Amino acid sequence: MPSAPNESGTMSETYVHGYHLRENERLQDQAGALVDLLHADTTYPDGSRVLEAGCGVGAQTVTLAQRSPGARFTSVDISADSIAEARRRVDRAGLTNVEFRQADIFALPFNPESFDHVFVCFVLEHLSRPVEALAILKRLLRPGGTITVIEGDHGSTYFYPDSPAAHAAIQCQVTMQREAGGNALIGRQVYPLLVEAGFEAVSVSPRMVYVDASRPALVDGFTRKTFTAMIEGIRESALAAGLIEPARFDAGVRDLYRTTEADGVFCYTFFKGVGKKGRGA
Amino acid sequence: MPSAPNESGTMSETYVHGYHLRENERLQDQAGALVDLLHADTTYPDGSRVLEAGCGVGAQTVTLAQRSPGARFTSVDISADSIAEARRRVDRAGLTNVEFRQADIFALPFNPESFDHVFVCFVLEHLSRPVEALAILKRLLRPGGTITVIEGDHGSTYFYPDSPAAHAAIQCQVTMQREAGGNALIGRQVYPLLVEAGFEAVSVSPRMVYVDASRPALVDGFTRKTFTAMIEGIRESALAAGLIEPARFDAGVRDLYRTTEADGVFCYTFFKGVGKKGRGA
Repeated sequence: MPSAPNESGTMSETYVHGYHLRENERLQDQAGALVDLLHADTTYPDGSRVLEAGCGVGAQTVTLAQRSPGARFTSVDISADSIAEARRRVDRAGLTNVEFRQADIFALPFNPESFDHVFVCFVLEHLSRPVEALAILKRLLRPGGTITVIEGDHGSTYFYPDSPAAHAAIQCQVTMQREAGGNALIGRQVYPLLVEAGFEAVSVSPRMVYVDASRPALVDGFTRKTFTAMIEGIRESALAAGLIEPARFDAGVRDLYRTTEADGVFCYTFFKGVGKKGRGA
Repeated sequence: MPSAPNESGTMSETYVHGYHLRENERLQDQAGALVDLLHADTTYPDGSRVLEAGCGVGAQTVTLAQRSPGARFTSVDISADSIAEARRRVDRAGLTNVEFRQADIFALPFNPESFDHVFVCFVLEHLSRPVEALAILKRLLRPGGTITVIEGDHGSTYFYPDSPAAHAAIQCQVTMQREAGGNALIGRQVYPLLVEAGFEAVSVSPRMVYVDASRPALVDGFTRKTFTAMIEGIRESALAAGLIEPARFDAGVRDLYRTTEADGVFCYTFFKGVGKKGRGA
């Protein structure tokens, strides 16, 4: 089980490849609408200290740091390779308000109350103990500080034309992520997880990606090259694990591509939650 | 198969009872947020002629007419009983800009190009030929006029804690509606249906109802008393049709109520589409 988001560690390469939405920065850039949908309402005041826990290869880091140029970001990941790539991206973007640290999210090298804000995106889905991770992050926040959590939910996926085979292919991903200790259906749980970890004033809002032919950038950037490519990318692992017959998996992927035609529709929902560390906590 | 929305006709009373979201006006009023979510962006200019096709008992009629006091509404339903109830509601609300007509949506007693706008809410889901209905409504629109369509989609339902039994109970509703000639998954199809009917500049936006314990009016008014009550209301019909075992159905309903507890989450999405009749159409 991964103890933290991990681009190259405990999960197989085949599983990891194509999995991380954040690896698709180039594709998401084609669909700037998606970046806005997730991040437009996240900005941090000048001078505030922000911990990004699980920065991966830095796709969110660049967006965050650009949107809050006066805030000071500390971005952490367990993988040195990911951090090296994240650092390259941040440098390429000409940003100077980010420093990187390699660390496990369950053993972060910071003093209590070191940060004003914490940001966690596409991370909890990989953890077998998400509430414990949130509690650790809460200790690093000053009283009154906030945490922002963004997670997807594969169970929020539906489309036209509908297809049982496509749902079966997606279910392989859900099963594999669960067997790796994660939870691909965690988006709907952001509210109860933040509450259970003791955050106050928790507010969750869904961020639904709705795609039809009138939105060609999302058809290509999200339905085709992010979501369907991710499912396509688990083919070998899913077959090796005996989760599905090859013909059925391939039909499912074909049916996902079918939703990108002129009469097709594709829906997926991310959940964004914000909570506050109480003054007495 | 119903040829038009029909509160008391071809479908069994048990099936109809509890089904129509619009019957739950009282409950939706507890959750004014839902009315805003669906209708806040629908207003018509003074003097415009608006056809509401399939007004049922008038829940939407009151909202529409209040929001556009200078527009003149013609609200049609196939059921005389529904129209009588709708008229009572409109009178009670003190509205004078609505007239009612009893008619089948496939045989509307109006001349071509009689209306500036058409509004259709929770109607197409009951029709076996929704594109044909839309084409008929398009003929009644003047060139440049708009149509607004709102539909739910039961396949957009997911929740925490997750429950296969709850999904099985919901599936009974989907199956029964399909066997009655309708489509409980039609929300995701609003875009392709409007395009196929020949409307131009079609724009669809999802209206997701996200419910967690921080939104108690929606917990009670939507999850408990609208959606779960609707599923509970089909129990006898679903069992009589042999669609599910009683114990499994009851477990499903129990699990839907379970989502209204402090750590529960419930999600449902409506789709709202607007299209325009072309100048050359």
